[in-house]
Amino acid sequence: MAMEVTRLKVNFKTLEEFKKFKEYGMQELSMLEDLQDNMIEDDYESPFYGIYYGDKLVARMSLYKRDAKYDLYFDPPQDYLELWKLEVLPEYRRKNYGKTLVEFAKQFGLPIKTNPRLNSHEFWRKMGFQPVTYDMERDLGENPLVWYPEGVGEQKSSSKS
Amino acid sequence: MAMEVTRLKVNFKTLEEFKKFKEYGMQELSMLEDLQDNMIEDDYESPFYGIYYGDKLVARMSLYKRDAKYDLYFDPPQDYLELWKLEVLPEYRRKNYGKTLVEFAKQFGLPIKTNPRLNSHEFWRKMGFQPVTYDMERDLGENPLVWYPEGVGEQKSSSKS
Repeated sequence: MAMEVTRLKVNFKTLEEFKKFKEYGMQELSMLEDLQDNMIEDDYESPFYGIYYGDKLVARMSLYKRDAKYDLYFDPPQDYLELWKLEVLPEYRRKNYGKTLVEFAKQFGLPIKTNPRLNSHEFWRKMGFQPVTYDMERDLGENPLVWYPEGVGEQKSSSKS
Repeated sequence: MAMEVTRLKVNFKTLEEFKKFKEYGMQELSMLEDLQDNMIEDDYESPFYGIYYGDKLVARMSLYKRDAKYDLYFDPPQDYLELWKLEVLPEYRRKNYGKTLVEFAKQFGLPIKTNPRLNSHEFWRKMGFQPVTYDMERDLGENPLVWYPEGVGEQKSSSKS
């Protein structure tokens, strides 16, 4: 089965589909308000990518490029991707939708940082992600996992520098 | 019933008790490694505060003061508290343990920021916390709630300045 990753357009239909996902929060509410107030146009490009099964959105993630100047995770410091809200609707799990999205993110060739749910660490390990050395000032309550492309390593003692 | 909030000492007993909490993650694992490697002393002061029922830890939170130079939430910018991992063991819920911990945090008189689980927003609203205007570059996948002491307001367009 061919799975195609699509960059999601922000419109009322997409935002309605987002409500089926567990991690519907302030980001989505803010997009909805902006649409309602005509602050953004219909079909505005969002940071969300997804996979449709027929016309139904069954998996999604948010992906955002952070500038090297904010990089506290990688050595050498560089532009990297933050990945969040990776989620597959319950009936569509164990069919590689999540894997397809993560592989899509890796294609950009940039290091990736995510802060996944605790019970998903086994999935992330299989995807080649690994924990960083915990640093309270930087990580607070997060459990950051990262993926290093070739030639990239862990930034040490970031918050102390 | 008198509830006393205690600053938790990091030792093997505390770390064993932490395992009963759902949000046991990299922070706790890192403390455990540091203890095992003698990188920190037994009974080191932790960022955790808790409430005991008898000799059993039944509620906890982590609290950390961030310097004004990192403040992207409050106006005027100032030192503020990050609060995370507020959690009460299931059998002890609805008995004001959570409320007691949050009120303890407020006592410091500093603004507080937290990024709570989505299903706990009603609790936080009752505690006087409110959502900030979502800013993707700053907030990513977070759903930040804040508490303002008197004279403190929301910092606008923080990431654009």
